[in-house]
Amino acid sequence: MGGSENGATDNQNKPTETSLSPDSIINLDQGDPTLFEPYWKKMGDKCTLVIGGCDLMSYFSDSSNICWFLQPQLGDAIKGLHRVVGNAVTDGRHIVVGTGSTQLLMAALYALSSPSASHPVSLVAAAPYYSGYKDQAEFLRSGLYKWEGDAHTFDKDGPYIEVVTSPNNPDGTIREAVVNLGEGKLVYDLAYYWPQYTPITHPLDHDIMLFTFSKCTGHAGSRIGWALVKDKEVARKMTEYMQISSIGVSKESQLRAAKILGVLSEGCQHFRTADSENFFEYSHRIMRERRESLQNVVKNSKIFSLPKFPQDYCNFTGKYTDSNPAFAWLHSKEGIDWESLLREHKIIGRSGERFGADPKYVRISMFSPPEAFNLFLERLSAIIDNTNGNVVGGEESSIIK
Amino acid sequence: MGGSENGATDNQNKPTETSLSPDSIINLDQGDPTLFEPYWKKMGDKCTLVIGGCDLMSYFSDSSNICWFLQPQLGDAIKGLHRVVGNAVTDGRHIVVGTGSTQLLMAALYALSSPSASHPVSLVAAAPYYSGYKDQAEFLRSGLYKWEGDAHTFDKDGPYIEVVTSPNNPDGTIREAVVNLGEGKLVYDLAYYWPQYTPITHPLDHDIMLFTFSKCTGHAGSRIGWALVKDKEVARKMTEYMQISSIGVSKESQLRAAKILGVLSEGCQHFRTADSENFFEYSHRIMRERRESLQNVVKNSKIFSLPKFPQDYCNFTGKYTDSNPAFAWLHSKEGIDWESLLREHKIIGRSGERFGADPKYVRISMFSPPEAFNLFLERLSAIIDNTNGNVVGGEESSIIK
Repeated sequence: MGGSENGATDNQNKPTETSLSPDSIINLDQGDPTLFEPYWKKMGDKCTLVIGGCDLMSYFSDSSNICWFLQPQLGDAIKGLHRVVGNAVTDGRHIVVGTGSTQLLMAALYALSSPSASHPVSLVAAAPYYSGYKDQAEFLRSGLYKWEGDAHTFDKDGPYIEVVTSPNNPDGTIREAVVNLGEGKLVYDLAYYWPQYTPITHPLDHDIMLFTFSKCTGHAGSRIGWALVKDKEVARKMTEYMQISSIGVSKESQLRAAKILGVLSEGCQHFRTADSENFFEYSHRIMRERRESLQNVVKNSKIFSLPKFPQDYCNFTGKYTDSNPAFAWLHSKEGIDWESLLREHKIIGRSGERFGADPKYVRISMFSPPEAFNLFLERLSAIIDNTNGNVVGGEESSIIK
Repeated sequence: MGGSENGATDNQNKPTETSLSPDSIINLDQGDPTLFEPYWKKMGDKCTLVIGGCDLMSYFSDSSNICWFLQPQLGDAIKGLHRVVGNAVTDGRHIVVGTGSTQLLMAALYALSSPSASHPVSLVAAAPYYSGYKDQAEFLRSGLYKWEGDAHTFDKDGPYIEVVTSPNNPDGTIREAVVNLGEGKLVYDLAYYWPQYTPITHPLDHDIMLFTFSKCTGHAGSRIGWALVKDKEVARKMTEYMQISSIGVSKESQLRAAKILGVLSEGCQHFRTADSENFFEYSHRIMRERRESLQNVVKNSKIFSLPKFPQDYCNFTGKYTDSNPAFAWLHSKEGIDWESLLREHKIIGRSGERFGADPKYVRISMFSPPEAFNLFLERLSAIIDNTNGNVVGGEESSIIK
């Protein structure tokens, strides 16, 4: 969620090959966060999970909990991590676990809509918005909710749901709700509100907040997300969605997430004294290095640019830090056909149009394996040299159309 | 699926307590197959799964496969098991993995419906049908498909989808499609087509066949199901459903299922020579013992009865075997109020009405822990003694209303 999606076409589903040649296609369409693997490798047996053949057989985890399929260890680990990081209030909140935060957004739409309403509830998000929301809202042609696109231009009367993605996918901005009308309900997609991506300025305290293991630690394959939910009835209906659509969430993944989040929290509590980096220091460094490398390449361009973010004080690190978005939101002067330009150089990005924005934007994943990222920088340098050469006294060549 | 569901109300979500007293409520509403745990415990380390902290981080499992999030080991284990058991043709089939077969039914509805159609496709199943199908078809008020109830009475023109559950949940019967009109598409829910529940008479060879790890081995908590799909485009659309609704399926659960199904297959290949039981021999024995105990109790009743199934030749065991349904489908003479009768004796079953059938039927799970099952038999004996006493010369007391 908020960027954990994959492309919908066959071609975009192919990740970058593992051994690269100058002819290789580099897929930067998806946000597959495998770049954090080396950290977890270094942790050795600390994060190893052992599951016996007779473990975890029941549908139930804790029948006293509204979310009866939530493993208590995972609930504890989630609360512990938020406490250590300081990014969200968990006291008195219900935790609903999902098959990724993707399933939880579907659950939130179900929980916040009304089967007895005469019209579907409107769903909006401020453009540029995560491309997956539209797909999720529309693919089953539900009569409960209806995608209405950009929140900036939404002016219908009646109930609506606004998804607030902060930091935003695709552009990394910190966001608040924009519609602010009486009958609105808000879902905060906080997939990237972790210290490696953005300064943690305060613990957020909204009615429904979605997080995902994928973007917190990089464990996308586990498909674990969680919602912190203030209202009991909303938590109950979200749980009901999970029950009807998949009867709960993998217990193996839940146990593994509990273990890894626990190790992560513990590492963070000692980070000011220990010699070794904790996970967020490590991942922040990796993301910062990538952002700086990309900025160094793009600054040479006469027509391309990246968003700029002010430094802010991060309560978690106790320092002023930069934002290191998970995606680069590349802007070009009018007239660049990003799609064909990138394809010509065997790079797959995602056009701004998919995000309800202008095609002069393209989203590039910053999560690719190191070799792919370096090859991308090389190719982008070549593109920039080429386009700079073509921009002569305001005249632009055929590549710019 | 086909019975892997849980009740929708809070009360029905509470499983039977682990330590039982005469006052304990026995929940036989759900089909939580924990009764097979002792077998897997006995297998010791053979089925133990060890996952390192840096394993399985990517969204992708095999980008060359239509179902790009299917772990190849699981695909191989599924094919191997069907080969050994002989219950389904896998050659040339696409495998789509799901978060339980529940999610796969949702995926099949999406794949078999048409977003460009002017009307939703009708969904039917022959009564008594699994109560979850209606919930799944209706809860999002999709414009793609519409629940039309009992297939026996369906006579609309146009496209339809019939779910064929065989052996059937709730009543254990072997089934074929009943509508048989031109524009029909069939989804076979084969959750219980395994040797412990029914004789395996031949390998089934239908367009879409759904299976679930939950009911095959008892590992319900893993939430793993699979579809064997003939048509490439249907497999692609089912995969798309998974992508949009949850971006794939837990890799930890997939690896564990691969391991356990592999051990199961291997055990079966040696079962005629080894001293120890293979899993299907074990689980068949447990289910048979339960069926026989229940039959022994019910045969004393003047008003209750159970369905009868003929023996059939099971290709897997090489013997004529009985059916041992996962649920008892208890029938009573007219006028019994099952709900209040069972509640009075602190037993939770599921009324026939939920299955599109008469309230003179009730479904009772045969999967409960041994103590709960024995206590159920005791209480049922008491009910039978009581109701027998009340049936005097055709007169029936107030309990029979």
